[in-house]
Amino acid sequence: MSRFGVSIETDLLDQFDALIQRKGYRSRSEAFRDLMREQLVREEWEDGDKTAVGILGLVYSHDTRELTKKLNRIQHRFFRNIISTTHIHLDHHNCLEVIVMKGKSADITHIADILISTRSVKDGKLLKTTTGAEIG
Amino acid sequence: MSRFGVSIETDLLDQFDALIQRKGYRSRSEAFRDLMREQLVREEWEDGDKTAVGILGLVYSHDTRELTKKLNRIQHRFFRNIISTTHIHLDHHNCLEVIVMKGKSADITHIADILISTRSVKDGKLLKTTTGAEIG
Amino acid sequence: MSRFGVSIETDLLDQFDALIQRKGYRSRSEAFRDLMREQLVREEWEDGDKTAVGILGLVYSHDTRELTKKLNRIQHRFFRNIISTTHIHLDHHNCLEVIVMKGKSADITHIADILISTRSVKDGKLLKTTTGAEIG
Amino acid sequence: MSRFGVSIETDLLDQFDALIQRKGYRSRSEAFRDLMREQLVREEWEDGDKTAVGILGLVYSHDTRELTKKLNRIQHRFFRNIISTTHIHLDHHNCLEVIVMKGKSADITHIADILISTRSVKDGKLLKTTTGAEIG
Repeated sequence: MSRFGVSIETDLLDQFDALIQRKGYRSRSEAFRDLMREQLVREEWEDGDKTAVGILGLVYSHDTRELTKKLNRIQHRFFRNIISTTHIHLDHHNCLEVIVMKGKSADITHIADILISTRSVKDGKLLKTTTGAEIG
Repeated sequence: MSRFGVSIETDLLDQFDALIQRKGYRSRSEAFRDLMREQLVREEWEDGDKTAVGILGLVYSHDTRELTKKLNRIQHRFFRNIISTTHIHLDHHNCLEVIVMKGKSADITHIADILISTRSVKDGKLLKTTTGAEIG
Repeated sequence: MSRFGVSIETDLLDQFDALIQRKGYRSRSEAFRDLMREQLVREEWEDGDKTAVGILGLVYSHDTRELTKKLNRIQHRFFRNIISTTHIHLDHHNCLEVIVMKGKSADITHIADILISTRSVKDGKLLKTTTGAEIG
Repeated sequence: MSRFGVSIETDLLDQFDALIQRKGYRSRSEAFRDLMREQLVREEWEDGDKTAVGILGLVYSHDTRELTKKLNRIQHRFFRNIISTTHIHLDHHNCLEVIVMKGKSADITHIADILISTRSVKDGKLLKTTTGAEIG
């Protein structure tokens, strides 16, 4: 553990303290650690060549003509980057697919863009995370 | 813990000891516990009205006309019993779907039968397990 | 289909066109549809009482004392909101957990906050999506 | 398609017809295809060196001291063979883990044996399936 001082404007600190209390943090140090790690993960993604992990969430209706098939075909093209897909049958019509990917961050973004921009996908979002290997 | 004696033919015991050693059991008691629990789970399944948990594995090619869509449609009909489906893109053609179900064992068996007997499914098998709630 | 005109500053439109082309959209209309749906999903989340779907990604090392157990305990407390968790063993040390939740958006946010703020979690992010039921 | 005749004892055929009707098969041919593929998958598993796919289901209580951690540690040792693990929080106490593995069938069996024989696992079963690559 390294200990050191930081100086922050009181107003900003008050807002921050209120926020991290609401979020359940036990101490400012733990909250700062998370912000620092978040920054490190962001850097990994900026560099398109680093190995990253992404989670893509897609919501769509399987009633839409050919959509299920189209999304599955696209995923198979990139099967080397897709670790596994969890499919939740939300109701009689709506599907949630949670696609876990590993690979160069540029490739993950590319695959996500193709799937999200497929016509009739109701919601598509990419969560950018990390292999953890280079984060302390 | 209850302790008690059992008498077993030496031949049978020798075979059993060799088997459980290969399987990595530390003691006969642990192996017996597993056999007893296995029997209890089997009983839960015999009684079609008890709540059970089943895992269905399906392997198929997404190149087969309409198959992906058909399997997804069937699953949506039973979305109340299907907790989640994991889809692994095994290669450019082959898919593995792992379907986790919870409900009356008779219903799970029924859903599994429909999916397994769908034309062109390469392999379909149901693993019968338990909610654990009634197993010590 | 409704058709109507919109007027946009040329500069903004040029930037937008370049962006959606990079992302693989076939037409401006499809890109606008996605933006509109995105806004609708965001509204669902603002209203803490609506049923929403969230995907939480957590990266951590299972070498960290008690962490695996702690995260599992917390999840069990909220088992009614957690549909399923996918665990990827990234390497000898690092774990990725992808936790799919359904329920009031306020509850999902609360559960995510608790898990993300748990000490030694390397990266934690919540992806906010939808049941799709109210999105056209 | 090849067509050919088979001769079967009437009694056996009657029983078989009743069974496959209950299971929802449309024709005897489809039922025979499934039996043949099942035999092929079984052969793949006999030969310990072929690449196979296995699905392991484990039910246990996360209240059992150290068990969650122990099972996670074992899985990380074999992370190269484990594609993904789905964890279902069945209730406040009971967990279902569905572990999807790919690799030499002998290795999959070995990993399954270690996990199933771990003390206090309530139910553990291995479903043996296939990559589909060599099954028509």
